[in-house]
Amino acid sequence: MTDEFVGRCRSIVGAPWVLADAPAMAPYLTDWRGRFTGRARAVLLPADTQEVAQLVAACAAARVPIVPQGGRTGLVLGSVPDASGEAVVLSLRRMNRILEVDPTNRTILVQAGAILQEIQDAASNAGLLFPLSLAAEGSCTIGGNLSTNAGGTAVLRYGNTRELCLGLEVVTPRGEVWDGLRALRKDNTGYALRELFVGAEGTLGIITAAVLKLYPQPKASTTALVAMDSPARALSLLSLMQDVCGPSLTAYELMSDFCLRLVAHHFPHLPRPFAATHAQYALLEVSSSESEEHAIRLLESGIEAALEGGLAIDAVVAMSTAQSGGLWQVREHISLAQAAAGKNIKHDVSLPISRIADFIATTDARLAEAFPGCQVVCFGHLGDGNLHYNVAPMEGVAHEAFLANQEAINRIVHDSVVAFDGSISAEHGIGALKVDDLKRYKDPVELNMMRAIKAALDPLGIMNPGKIL
Amino acid sequence: MTDEFVGRCRSIVGAPWVLADAPAMAPYLTDWRGRFTGRARAVLLPADTQEVAQLVAACAAARVPIVPQGGRTGLVLGSVPDASGEAVVLSLRRMNRILEVDPTNRTILVQAGAILQEIQDAASNAGLLFPLSLAAEGSCTIGGNLSTNAGGTAVLRYGNTRELCLGLEVVTPRGEVWDGLRALRKDNTGYALRELFVGAEGTLGIITAAVLKLYPQPKASTTALVAMDSPARALSLLSLMQDVCGPSLTAYELMSDFCLRLVAHHFPHLPRPFAATHAQYALLEVSSSESEEHAIRLLESGIEAALEGGLAIDAVVAMSTAQSGGLWQVREHISLAQAAAGKNIKHDVSLPISRIADFIATTDARLAEAFPGCQVVCFGHLGDGNLHYNVAPMEGVAHEAFLANQEAINRIVHDSVVAFDGSISAEHGIGALKVDDLKRYKDPVELNMMRAIKAALDPLGIMNPGKIL
Repeated sequence: MTDEFVGRCRSIVGAPWVLADAPAMAPYLTDWRGRFTGRARAVLLPADTQEVAQLVAACAAARVPIVPQGGRTGLVLGSVPDASGEAVVLSLRRMNRILEVDPTNRTILVQAGAILQEIQDAASNAGLLFPLSLAAEGSCTIGGNLSTNAGGTAVLRYGNTRELCLGLEVVTPRGEVWDGLRALRKDNTGYALRELFVGAEGTLGIITAAVLKLYPQPKASTTALVAMDSPARALSLLSLMQDVCGPSLTAYELMSDFCLRLVAHHFPHLPRPFAATHAQYALLEVSSSESEEHAIRLLESGIEAALEGGLAIDAVVAMSTAQSGGLWQVREHISLAQAAAGKNIKHDVSLPISRIADFIATTDARLAEAFPGCQVVCFGHLGDGNLHYNVAPMEGVAHEAFLANQEAINRIVHDSVVAFDGSISAEHGIGALKVDDLKRYKDPVELNMMRAIKAALDPLGIMNPGKIL
Repeated sequence: MTDEFVGRCRSIVGAPWVLADAPAMAPYLTDWRGRFTGRARAVLLPADTQEVAQLVAACAAARVPIVPQGGRTGLVLGSVPDASGEAVVLSLRRMNRILEVDPTNRTILVQAGAILQEIQDAASNAGLLFPLSLAAEGSCTIGGNLSTNAGGTAVLRYGNTRELCLGLEVVTPRGEVWDGLRALRKDNTGYALRELFVGAEGTLGIITAAVLKLYPQPKASTTALVAMDSPARALSLLSLMQDVCGPSLTAYELMSDFCLRLVAHHFPHLPRPFAATHAQYALLEVSSSESEEHAIRLLESGIEAALEGGLAIDAVVAMSTAQSGGLWQVREHISLAQAAAGKNIKHDVSLPISRIADFIATTDARLAEAFPGCQVVCFGHLGDGNLHYNVAPMEGVAHEAFLANQEAINRIVHDSVVAFDGSISAEHGIGALKVDDLKRYKDPVELNMMRAIKAALDPLGIMNPGKIL
């Protein structure tokens, strides 16, 4: 399709950077898990912030909706266009530079299209740590991480992406550039606009650059796997380890026995740390700014207390980086083992940590009543109160057929989450996938404030329409 | 004044809790430093959130402006009414209860009028730490701390008040109650409204309750005072200590020689750690989740490296809690020594840490040129990039007379702050005092977004008018 609007976009970014034919656009239109393919009027690939601003102004003038896109690794359809074909996709992938590392201020300035792993590497090359880490880090962009307030495996110690961001540059829905690229630990000069754009999933403007916090690299980390007989024990062990290790406890992941059996079945080459079977396992990581011996000593002293106090049944402490890596691989292969077993019904929920054991018991029971024999694959970042609570079919039922129960199962799980004061989206966001859930569960006072803010900042409603609200 | 509106308020909260005569209202109308006294139509003292909501609805109906008030310890006139006498003061001081401590989730639920020190005590009684700590902690309320995003002495390790808050209850400018009292570490379900109310200084609604994060109590802390010959060396020492101590470095405060001499002059009973005179001093605190020996060992190993590398000239490491306390007293008496010396011109600024040495040199030189002989009292939370950069008169000039230069000196200091990419309000906020400065220095794109949000959430403009915007 060649129209006047597309011509205007070409005059801004140059003809090669406006894709308007189907084969060229295709890679930008399908979501990461391959569940949905939308349509677009064009795909725009600006080279810098000024081009983004001019494109947005052109879209505003022509009332063309804009879907901002980073690495397209989101799990809730937040970065792909709908089926109408009215929107343009604005991809930040050409704006992928690391602009500056400031080792004394411990900050890094990056463009929004920078790949997470390249930011980690740039920090590492400066002898520092950018702690955000998640499965898609080789593909996802920091603009997407910020727009979805991504979580990952380092939240317990370093917080979500929100807590790692000091400053932003944003192109507003009018096509203005807001230079909020501050590199300050303290700044109380008005409303928290930075916080508002983080997690807004591109519905309030387009993040084009960011200043991020860096940390000293720990000298060493070590890992243990601890066997316990219940989620309640896992919660007690978490408290104990936090008291013993303080900020040195950098990860605390929960896995049920079913998760470990699934991994063992599909990936038999991975370590099987225990001969006996136990109900629950916790993967613990302790990092030290001093030495490997210090990390091991801290970890062992916590685990010894847990074994003596009867909290833990058995434990394996990694004695090398290779052993640590092996234990992490078990954790990281749960999702892959699930995928190998067939499709299942996924939930990304969070709860007050103190209510997790009751949540699991109650929700397991409700599901067993409604779908006798269904299998719960429950694991997650227990230290953050974040569970991936997934449901697979009963023995002998085809996975595809079981997906017909998705809505009923979502309702059972999310009703239970809300009853236990939890969140129906811990780290993945709302996107297009959970818009109806948000309407169902969110306090109307809160929804109305969100709508008022959306209308105030994006009065034409052109920024990522149909997402979140 | 008895009018229909005041009668309506009495019917909501009971007659004793609406103050309308001058002597009863007086304690609510003057700011903490005694620089300004406003007027009010009445002072309202609700007992609970429902009463707050009904009062706000009554104010909205009658178009009466509302000044929310906590402990009234703010430094920028944010919590006192203007001189018009049109507004009511709505004090949260009766809503001062600690509602619940959840030791497993490591959270505490409090009403907005709870005194900071009482929250610290409640955490401590549960064997946990609420880390927010600042000079006014015996009087200030958590609602005020949240509304101003207070800083204090624990920011380096635990962040600002923003980072310590998980959930809020807010009465909106329409008199609705938003129940956002979530106790979750992860929640990506829409816009960051919590973040927006934190630091909004009561201009978007009234915080009535909050869920706050608690931490394990460190087993021990220890302190050192290190002498150096320049701010640049103090920055290098900060990097070194962060690398050696990681998250165990819990405070890093800078003081110039002039500050120490001022304290020694006005408080001769306090410790004078060094016989010789040095240009700059850093007060370091290291906390350990293990033992006092561990804290001392970490601190000493960092300081030894600094002495060997020529970064530091001399150092005193506290060998007891009493010695630590003595060193902190020197730091905490700088403001008192200044007050004893007479009024001076204060600035609460922040900068990228890497630019602080250049900022100090440049600003000192500009002031010396404009006001030869004037004395800079520069100290602050260097680890957060936050300086209290105050200016006192030259020898022989009366302090009161020198205040006539306030505007010119503010301009020199704040122009320099902005030139070095800093903030004109690091931890105190804008209030009524810095509204003109904000207009002068803030990006118009940012100011316009702030105004749009204010108009969207408070269309009648009744919440704390004249503050921030």
